[in-house]
Amino acid sequence: MSRLDSFIRRLEAQRACLDRAAELIGGTDGAVLELGLGNGRTYDHLCELFPQRDIYVCERQVAAHPDCIPPADRLLLGDMFDTLPAARDWLGGKVALTHFDAGTGDAAANLRLATGLRPLILPLLRPGGILATQQAMDGPELETLPLPDGVAEGRYHLYRRV
Amino acid sequence: MSRLDSFIRRLEAQRACLDRAAELIGGTDGAVLELGLGNGRTYDHLCELFPQRDIYVCERQVAAHPDCIPPADRLLLGDMFDTLPAARDWLGGKVALTHFDAGTGDAAANLRLATGLRPLILPLLRPGGILATQQAMDGPELETLPLPDGVAEGRYHLYRRV
Repeated sequence: MSRLDSFIRRLEAQRACLDRAAELIGGTDGAVLELGLGNGRTYDHLCELFPQRDIYVCERQVAAHPDCIPPADRLLLGDMFDTLPAARDWLGGKVALTHFDAGTGDAAANLRLATGLRPLILPLLRPGGILATQQAMDGPELETLPLPDGVAEGRYHLYRRV
Repeated sequence: MSRLDSFIRRLEAQRACLDRAAELIGGTDGAVLELGLGNGRTYDHLCELFPQRDIYVCERQVAAHPDCIPPADRLLLGDMFDTLPAARDWLGGKVALTHFDAGTGDAAANLRLATGLRPLILPLLRPGGILATQQAMDGPELETLPLPDGVAEGRYHLYRRV
């Protein structure tokens, strides 16, 4: 499998998991939190899926396509290890869906980042809220959910906050 | 359709067209020429498709994944508007497949680039050689070929050098 094949599968898995997450939170109030804006493609997909919800985006430095930049009051600008704890006061327990995809080619670094972010994400998720993540974040507070058809085990992860 | 949807379709179209091109040049000797290395994903796919062929890559400045960097003697380093004319002496009429995907979000700039590159690519392609390109390069020297199933008209282009 080439890197092109692998990349396509990862993007397809991401989309399938976000689309499934949208069904799962259909009856649950709450915001959406995207960890990392990047080029803004995933944010654009979230905007299509959740036109009625507040979508907050963490990003260190915005470099997205101009059409895919969140309004300033929904952009958590800076290092996530600063902005996520600071958001706890006003966003704690109010997030219905969080998405994380480190998106770099360094699997070990991605996993370290996911492990570090996990305790910062959990307090923001409301009970019943969904976490969709490319990197595993298993633990007692998170129930592992089945993946959509066509998404190979381990390629993406869906959790429900207990 | 979100930008994520659109991006996935573009990558799927690229892969389908390259896979089709590999069938089309199955009985034709010649090198492969990739216009732009980028992150190296497409080059990696070409390496899988064409393990027996010389694959030359044009790139201004290499910034690809370390596993996806061509050997120095197959890298045409510099501005394509310099390197392609310079390659005519030794590569003229010897290329069985050329691939081009500008890959930026600026459709007008992509098309201008394709139009500029067209006369530089043609002398390198051998008769019967294939040009797979995201940007249209229609003209009398190129026969338009049907696209693979599932690739929408205009999303990608396949040509055979007359």
